[in-house]
Amino acid sequence: MTGLTPKSTSALRTVAPEERSHEVDHPSSLVAQFGADKPLKLDCGVDLAPFQIAYQTYGELNADKSNAVLVCHALTGDQHVANRHPVTGKPGWWETLVGQGRPLDPSRYFIICSNVIGGCMGSTGPASMNPATGKVWGLDFPIITIPDMVRAQAMLIDHLGIDTLFAVVGGSMGGMQALQWTVAYPARVFANLAIACATRHSAQNIAFHELGRQAVMADPDWDHGRYGDKGVHPHRGLAVARMAAHITYLSDAALHRKFGRRMQDRELPTFSFDADFQVESYLRYQGSSFVERFDANSYLYLTRAMDYFDIAGDHDGVLAAAFRGIKTRFCVVSFTSDWLFPTSESRALVHALNASSARVSFAEIETDKGHDAFLLDVPEFIDIAGAFLESAGKARGLKAPNGG
Amino acid sequence: MTGLTPKSTSALRTVAPEERSHEVDHPSSLVAQFGADKPLKLDCGVDLAPFQIAYQTYGELNADKSNAVLVCHALTGDQHVANRHPVTGKPGWWETLVGQGRPLDPSRYFIICSNVIGGCMGSTGPASMNPATGKVWGLDFPIITIPDMVRAQAMLIDHLGIDTLFAVVGGSMGGMQALQWTVAYPARVFANLAIACATRHSAQNIAFHELGRQAVMADPDWDHGRYGDKGVHPHRGLAVARMAAHITYLSDAALHRKFGRRMQDRELPTFSFDADFQVESYLRYQGSSFVERFDANSYLYLTRAMDYFDIAGDHDGVLAAAFRGIKTRFCVVSFTSDWLFPTSESRALVHALNASSARVSFAEIETDKGHDAFLLDVPEFIDIAGAFLESAGKARGLKAPNGG
Repeated sequence: MTGLTPKSTSALRTVAPEERSHEVDHPSSLVAQFGADKPLKLDCGVDLAPFQIAYQTYGELNADKSNAVLVCHALTGDQHVANRHPVTGKPGWWETLVGQGRPLDPSRYFIICSNVIGGCMGSTGPASMNPATGKVWGLDFPIITIPDMVRAQAMLIDHLGIDTLFAVVGGSMGGMQALQWTVAYPARVFANLAIACATRHSAQNIAFHELGRQAVMADPDWDHGRYGDKGVHPHRGLAVARMAAHITYLSDAALHRKFGRRMQDRELPTFSFDADFQVESYLRYQGSSFVERFDANSYLYLTRAMDYFDIAGDHDGVLAAAFRGIKTRFCVVSFTSDWLFPTSESRALVHALNASSARVSFAEIETDKGHDAFLLDVPEFIDIAGAFLESAGKARGLKAPNGG
Repeated sequence: MTGLTPKSTSALRTVAPEERSHEVDHPSSLVAQFGADKPLKLDCGVDLAPFQIAYQTYGELNADKSNAVLVCHALTGDQHVANRHPVTGKPGWWETLVGQGRPLDPSRYFIICSNVIGGCMGSTGPASMNPATGKVWGLDFPIITIPDMVRAQAMLIDHLGIDTLFAVVGGSMGGMQALQWTVAYPARVFANLAIACATRHSAQNIAFHELGRQAVMADPDWDHGRYGDKGVHPHRGLAVARMAAHITYLSDAALHRKFGRRMQDRELPTFSFDADFQVESYLRYQGSSFVERFDANSYLYLTRAMDYFDIAGDHDGVLAAAFRGIKTRFCVVSFTSDWLFPTSESRALVHALNASSARVSFAEIETDKGHDAFLLDVPEFIDIAGAFLESAGKARGLKAPNGG
């Protein structure tokens, strides 16, 4: 996959579906705009209009429109799943899963990945202009939920003229969206690959998110979310939030293997607050690089959406009720060392799916890589994802765009 | 135990050992001062002088001075182990273990608890006056280590005229000090009760500490540690650091049991960034109450001391070498749901003690309360601590102050 010259998101173009390019690498994201006649009905009661969704596609839609796959991104991900990132210049965030010779091969599937509503990579969010005021939305942006994200994606899928998705695939917050897709639109999802996720956010996870939000809000540059019109950004607070989150993405064992107590470029301690240990230097880098590509208010909104997520809570506390009668085939994947979304959460989901007589396979992958494993080249995981999609494709009688 | 009227630490008095009170509740802390002739030799190479150690004592030293017990406090603890806290007005932080009818009963033992060097409750630390400049030390205060803390305690014990401690007892950072006592002064410790601790700080724990330090340093009021002369304090940054640490003190299960996804004073979400969930409200309280009693620079110094702690590292990587030939009796206690100092760390310590032919008993207590369990009334733990001290007392031929 060839890289693109890094571009800023200001290069976003509005392109009608029929004009869109089918190259793997897009020079910039496509944007679907929804006017006042097509508001996004949010859970908080607000009708959001106008709004736009930025997205990338890879591959071609086949003749009977049966090969569309929606990939849902995680908290700090975006639509650049399999192309060089326009801001960071880094490879796509899920090139282990999406790309030539990978389980989601663009020669076979029409792959769509959109920036979530509330995000900051081209979809409408708190960093966008509020048309009513001509100023940046900031905290006046309405609170969004995981179901809202999925509702916006469904409007994008409609916009693309697609009725049923062959598959919805996602990890972490992306897995939450994948699950919500089947809950909200059971007839529109043939296969569901939900990875390293849960049907609700735990108290510990809410606590970590609240910690991150408080770190952002403690930064005077945040200024009650009004930094958007002032040309400043709460870099320091957001970097701290990112550091906290990053620790939860790794496991104790992974941190020990990667860094242990090794010193940074030295053998003896400096007896100072310098980053003596490699793990300190690594964390500082994670914090400082993140703030260059992410909006602080967006971080608040997306963490809040995850906190509110609770499928059972929306169904009188009965998780299985949410999946009653569904035909979607599920593959649920968890990783043994993931303490953010531990296997027990995936198991509860699988039990509920079983109780709903849903077709479900469950893979608990043995790894010490923690939650991050879903983004890494873990062969067992990639193989299982590939086998599940292959098998679902056969059941669907899927034909590649060229009829192969 | 009767409460005291809350007092500020400015009420610290310098009292000679022979004048000190033996009441359980002291109206204020005792202070041992060490002049230019008695510098504290720090690991970083600095001779710190003058300096002072604030401490509390409970009970009376017996005739042969064989009943002295040193209690070592954890990161954010202090000398007020078993009396009402002069700042917060709360009960002593370890009244489950220390007090009448408790394993460390002042009618039987002479119990000493001192604020660590680098602390902020009367012992010399970064919030103290630098006599060379007449200003608050701030970041000019030298970096201290766990061995430095223990070296200062040994000078206090000398000052009190005590040769051998019957026991050193501590949890978390206090447990690190307890272990270091036997490593540094093997002949001066008869029994060692090391709880919920480790012989070194793990990469994940260093990461959490670095996160806390970065949160403090991100607060503009911190101002490179120079806030001390300006009448401000980096409250916001320190509160965030405390929230992060507090999550690590509890377990996922404990958070789930205590809070789950329960809302705060409401049934429906507010769709805002208010503390909708009880766990958010709890964390915010933990953060804001902490900053009223703790100095931000002290927090930096003490977390750094824990990060540097590595007993094996000081003994060519061989942990057992640190304990070779010791006669101290050990009781090592861990808690199953403690993920900050997991049982595996205690087990490694026990293996090293076994390899050194040390006398050691090991108790892994089944609880879902996480690291905080050592501060809570966990009957199995209290019973084990009591039995260990009882048995060690018999071996020592211990006599109570009244000869009983």
